[in-house]
Amino acid sequence: MQMLAFTVRNHRLVAGKKPLPELRPRWALVRVRLAGICNTDVEILRGYHSFRGTPGHEFAGEVANVRGVSVAQKKKWIGRRVAGEINVTCSAYGYKPVCHFCRRGLKNLALPLENLHGVPDSVSDEQAVFVEPLAAACEILEQVNVKRFREAAVLGDGKLAQLVARVLRTAVPRVVMFGKYKEKLALAHRAGIETKKVRGDAGDLKLIGETFPLLVEATGSATGLAFAQHMTEPRGTLVLKSTFHGAAPVETWPIVVKEITAVGSRCGPFAKAIALLSSGKIDPRPLITRTFSLAEAQAAIQFAQERGVMKVLLKTQGANFI
Amino acid sequence: MQMLAFTVRNHRLVAGKKPLPELRPRWALVRVRLAGICNTDVEILRGYHSFRGTPGHEFAGEVANVRGVSVAQKKKWIGRRVAGEINVTCSAYGYKPVCHFCRRGLKNLALPLENLHGVPDSVSDEQAVFVEPLAAACEILEQVNVKRFREAAVLGDGKLAQLVARVLRTAVPRVVMFGKYKEKLALAHRAGIETKKVRGDAGDLKLIGETFPLLVEATGSATGLAFAQHMTEPRGTLVLKSTFHGAAPVETWPIVVKEITAVGSRCGPFAKAIALLSSGKIDPRPLITRTFSLAEAQAAIQFAQERGVMKVLLKTQGANFI
Repeated sequence: MQMLAFTVRNHRLVAGKKPLPELRPRWALVRVRLAGICNTDVEILRGYHSFRGTPGHEFAGEVANVRGVSVAQKKKWIGRRVAGEINVTCSAYGYKPVCHFCRRGLKNLALPLENLHGVPDSVSDEQAVFVEPLAAACEILEQVNVKRFREAAVLGDGKLAQLVARVLRTAVPRVVMFGKYKEKLALAHRAGIETKKVRGDAGDLKLIGETFPLLVEATGSATGLAFAQHMTEPRGTLVLKSTFHGAAPVETWPIVVKEITAVGSRCGPFAKAIALLSSGKIDPRPLITRTFSLAEAQAAIQFAQERGVMKVLLKTQGANFI
Repeated sequence: MQMLAFTVRNHRLVAGKKPLPELRPRWALVRVRLAGICNTDVEILRGYHSFRGTPGHEFAGEVANVRGVSVAQKKKWIGRRVAGEINVTCSAYGYKPVCHFCRRGLKNLALPLENLHGVPDSVSDEQAVFVEPLAAACEILEQVNVKRFREAAVLGDGKLAQLVARVLRTAVPRVVMFGKYKEKLALAHRAGIETKKVRGDAGDLKLIGETFPLLVEATGSATGLAFAQHMTEPRGTLVLKSTFHGAAPVETWPIVVKEITAVGSRCGPFAKAIALLSSGKIDPRPLITRTFSLAEAQAAIQFAQERGVMKVLLKTQGANFI
């Protein structure tokens, strides 16, 4: 049996077929129903980490098969709608879980069962596909006691920034998003977030003139980090969400001079994200700009890079195992 | 009445006389007995913060006068040996203490009483002059629960790094100092600190091959920060002590990718530093390379910049009020 799979080749996605991955004991084969395009996927096309293989780590799917478990477990999992954590630890390969770096690089559509989270009926595929990035936003709640803050700022108005602002807003009375694009800020405004349009240059700092005890840098650019340090109060907390490679590096002395605590923040708790979606506290669907069919993956990833575009989804039509 | 005072002029210290500072209510005039030269003083000569006036913020002295207090308070303070905190807050000027930036720029020899800490007889002037930088090292204990770590690393073998390593060693079983200079590392070794000599270039990372759950960057150089990120364990704590200006900035993505908590750390608790000196848990005197007379201040600050030189002190001989 084979599966449809796009592969990165010469900075493009090339359609093709691949054998189904061999399942290790307690791993599951997942049939993807809907996938999201993340900026990491875009960076992968540009050469990030010299990634080879089939990209994609945001998805909603259903379990097609599972190996090495009891009949009851098989019954529990097969056919179940799931979201899947993307960090495959060493333990999943039978090693001791000593390495925190077994990140990204999703192996086709197979994942260890311990990475799977059942998606309740109250959460649609369109919502479930946001579980992974929403979990990344929720990671902040694991790292920082955000409830002690009366206000917080989010730098950036992109996809991750939007989710971060919504997550913060569940616990912090005043959340201000600073962004460059009117349409993106409008999306946040509709979700109860205060917004301020900035140009993104040095003149902004005077314009803004405000500092915050909690600030999340989610612009995806090195300039954002320079700003973020200036906009964080002395002894404040600065959460770093952007991983920019190859960009101009930034002077970090304000972190020392202002005794800022800078918290690097990456992937997060899926259960919390599913709970936020299920309870209706966060509905990310307004962030979907367009849904393409899986066959249009290359066009979709091009479209995802256009200005003003937010989340782009890929929908599997019919069988993707052939 | 006037006082001897060196002033920064054309990147040099120029000897001269200044009127005694007028005392505000609850401020004290301090007769400096011994002063330490800090790298900040060296940077001030190079133009840091366009500082004008009389530099110097590490000192042991005695209270010569105090204004606007009861007779009992006068009796308590006058003649008392003191160390003085260098951060003069707005409140000391009669304003509300809203600004965290009233740092450095010591106003001659006058300080508000609230900044003064009595030095017990068990602590000599040679020890007391280290109270300010030792307090900066102790700030780490205020910011990080270091007791939960079994091991920690200090990057750098300079004055601040030496004090940081000694402070950590009071609470952490294994402290490793990474430095470039054999003689400086030997000083740390004699204080019970494990040491490793490195070259300070990219090849070192392979050489070192170790990561730490707690790491303090105290090299004073941007290169140190690049190293520090690689030598910190995923989800580890990285304390930033160096403020380097004008140096090549550093890429910070490892902080995000490894979810490091980076804690900017500056000035610290004087009482804790005095307690460590008084109890004998830390004796910084082996770090003194040479003591000059106050009249030799310019020569002393030149000497302080020579390779291998650690702490340089300035001793007041006879009266410094004339």
